[in-house]
Amino acid sequence: MQEIFKRILPGITPIEKERRELKIIADLLLERINSFAKQFQVKGVLVGSAARDTWISGEHDIDLFILFPETANRKTLETTGLDIARKVLFDADKIEERYAEHPYLHGMMNSYKIDVVPCFNIKDTKNIKSAVDRTPHHNNFVKKYIKTCEKDVRLAKQFLKAAGIYGSELRTHGFSGYLTELLIIHYGSFEALLKASLRWKPCTTIDIKKHATHKHGDPLVVIDPTDPKRNVAAALSLDNMCRFIDIARNFLKNPCTEYFSKPARKLVYQEEIEQLFHRRGTELIGITFHKPCIVEDTLYPQLEKMRNAVEKLLTRHDFRIINSNYIVLNADIYLIFELFETKLPMVKKHIGPPVWLKDNAEKFKAKYHKKSGNLSYIYIKDGKYTLNIQRVYTTPTSLFQSELLTCGLGKHITQIIKQDGFSTLSDHELFAIEHPEFRTFLYHLLTHKQDS
Amino acid sequence: MQEIFKRILPGITPIEKERRELKIIADLLLERINSFAKQFQVKGVLVGSAARDTWISGEHDIDLFILFPETANRKTLETTGLDIARKVLFDADKIEERYAEHPYLHGMMNSYKIDVVPCFNIKDTKNIKSAVDRTPHHNNFVKKYIKTCEKDVRLAKQFLKAAGIYGSELRTHGFSGYLTELLIIHYGSFEALLKASLRWKPCTTIDIKKHATHKHGDPLVVIDPTDPKRNVAAALSLDNMCRFIDIARNFLKNPCTEYFSKPARKLVYQEEIEQLFHRRGTELIGITFHKPCIVEDTLYPQLEKMRNAVEKLLTRHDFRIINSNYIVLNADIYLIFELFETKLPMVKKHIGPPVWLKDNAEKFKAKYHKKSGNLSYIYIKDGKYTLNIQRVYTTPTSLFQSELLTCGLGKHITQIIKQDGFSTLSDHELFAIEHPEFRTFLYHLLTHKQDS
Repeated sequence: MQEIFKRILPGITPIEKERRELKIIADLLLERINSFAKQFQVKGVLVGSAARDTWISGEHDIDLFILFPETANRKTLETTGLDIARKVLFDADKIEERYAEHPYLHGMMNSYKIDVVPCFNIKDTKNIKSAVDRTPHHNNFVKKYIKTCEKDVRLAKQFLKAAGIYGSELRTHGFSGYLTELLIIHYGSFEALLKASLRWKPCTTIDIKKHATHKHGDPLVVIDPTDPKRNVAAALSLDNMCRFIDIARNFLKNPCTEYFSKPARKLVYQEEIEQLFHRRGTELIGITFHKPCIVEDTLYPQLEKMRNAVEKLLTRHDFRIINSNYIVLNADIYLIFELFETKLPMVKKHIGPPVWLKDNAEKFKAKYHKKSGNLSYIYIKDGKYTLNIQRVYTTPTSLFQSELLTCGLGKHITQIIKQDGFSTLSDHELFAIEHPEFRTFLYHLLTHKQDS
Repeated sequence: MQEIFKRILPGITPIEKERRELKIIADLLLERINSFAKQFQVKGVLVGSAARDTWISGEHDIDLFILFPETANRKTLETTGLDIARKVLFDADKIEERYAEHPYLHGMMNSYKIDVVPCFNIKDTKNIKSAVDRTPHHNNFVKKYIKTCEKDVRLAKQFLKAAGIYGSELRTHGFSGYLTELLIIHYGSFEALLKASLRWKPCTTIDIKKHATHKHGDPLVVIDPTDPKRNVAAALSLDNMCRFIDIARNFLKNPCTEYFSKPARKLVYQEEIEQLFHRRGTELIGITFHKPCIVEDTLYPQLEKMRNAVEKLLTRHDFRIINSNYIVLNADIYLIFELFETKLPMVKKHIGPPVWLKDNAEKFKAKYHKKSGNLSYIYIKDGKYTLNIQRVYTTPTSLFQSELLTCGLGKHITQIIKQDGFSTLSDHELFAIEHPEFRTFLYHLLTHKQDS
């Protein structure tokens, strides 16, 4: 195994030249922040993997924090913070205002991705005012305890990336950088982490400082050494924890370098998809609409929400779902469902009140007695008046036409669909989309190949 | 309402000539039993509606019990009892040995249905040895307390019969004769019973003697005045109790004589059925096989069991059932299911062990990894290894061919199907069955018209 690590490390460890270049830019920007030190009582710090030497060669992220005094007021921090950030990034190639709990600036400079984030300089994490205030504390903790394990963090990150489970954002529900670092600190090495993961099960708890104050119901619980209330692994999904266990088990059984590189994207032909689809005997239905002009961090949670909402809508109307997924392709979004059926019988069971509740029973009878469109007499089943009525939606297409907009979509998706509309796509229409990435996406949907 | 009752009563009250005829036969048979009194210490008693004057004109049932001393042994009772019964019915038209807890004799004589049942003459019902030992006690209680309410019992029985909910056997799950009599004794009249039923709800308890010793979870609880442990209404189903409430409510709102006669059987045409079926958009599948040569009391519980077992079988294999029923037509039985679909996709989700259970996980992977016939990769869902495999049965026909005999049918139905086989029938084949009773049955299945 150590042999494999030795072969991987050179590819992921930044070389001296790369480090120097990053340091030059980081130092320059820090100096710029600190030029406002006297005027606003602020201080610049480099945080993140660049500060901790846990970044992977080729990654060009620089995270700079502007620390404001604990006593500063929030409004000042937000406006002055952004002002300073703008001056710091005055010569950047591209600048964008982004939002966490408060606004910060994102820019590109010599192909480096740079975040300049204002925060409060809080001594005790008990008093933090904003989630980002924790970051400098994380930085200090990792720098102090990581010792010589930076290479293990790099191996772990690369391993997680190749498995498609690195990143704590909503789109991934995976392992964040800080979580990876804490796991390495706790277990001492990447090999030890791999071996330890084989004993993980839901609710496994790691509490480096033994100071937890809360119970967490998450699949993996890693108590923040800088904040006893917080689970650093809260964003990690059960399935991604399990994927890690699964891949770790495979790797330990048969270590090889492939675990550190993403598999080459398989080229999928239309005939292959159609054959697969034919063998499965299922039905496909797609919804497509324009991509709203919002950043990924806003878009993906809304897509996740939409997928869940439409799944519930379909289930509520008796369609049985096998799988679903979405893809953003240039300016369009495709949300696809694989279903048992796309045509339901007209008949729908309608269950009324219990027979012994006189008032409800009489109202029900008055409403449905000999109503045109009834598909049965009123009968008694399990003590309740019941009858067969006409189903309103016998196809997903008619269901979507009437109820998609009201089933609980996100704000921006609702807006764009209201504005530009949406289309439904049949299996044939989906197969006809001539885009290699879309074909791979369909292939993954039909084969349940884990996206990685 | 009393007006309606007055119009109904003459049709259901036995006239003097009818009573006299019944008495002559009953007395004759009692004398025959009592001719063995000395030899075997037995005594004959007339029980049932004939003894209590609660029978309906036209009904010709005579229930005679041969009381053996409490101290007699069971074997003697069974053999001597049957011997006596055979001698009592020596000149009957047709004799049949039947079984309750022990054997008894059923015979026809001048178009009277006669049961001759041996039982123990138990003083205290606490000591009864066989369920039938209670009958003489029921007889005494009803005779003592029914007073002048015989006409109310007749009205109630006729009302229940017209609604199709009279009879406690498994086929009906309705109101027994004794239950009907107790309800009249408790409420004082048929009108009072109707009105009281509007306040019934599940677990309503009637305890005439206020001596209940057990909790019962049945829909209606009527404690046996001769046995504090027993619920006389145990066989009554929730739905039949509710049907009574429903019909009582309708009758009280608009009393008319129709409630005392079964509706004329509707004549149904093939086109009508096909139209109905087309409107519902569902699928039908039938199973037909020869009727085993067993009495109804044995056949119907087995049919009920078969219907439940096949419903479970279909549900377990992802077919969705809308309704089901069976009919015995001459020498054949038909069991019909109305389904959402008769064709399922090939794909079937197969859920394996949780990822963190190493041994199970490895067994599962060894079994399914790259297995031919897999319809997906192994993926992780809700913490468990999952994959799509080929469904074994995509149609009910193939499911029945392989699993009908092993899904838990009754003894005699299993025998006859093993011996003669069974056929499945498609919708077209079902519609082509040219039998008015079968058409009415299909019409009821598709419209949920309550069989009455």
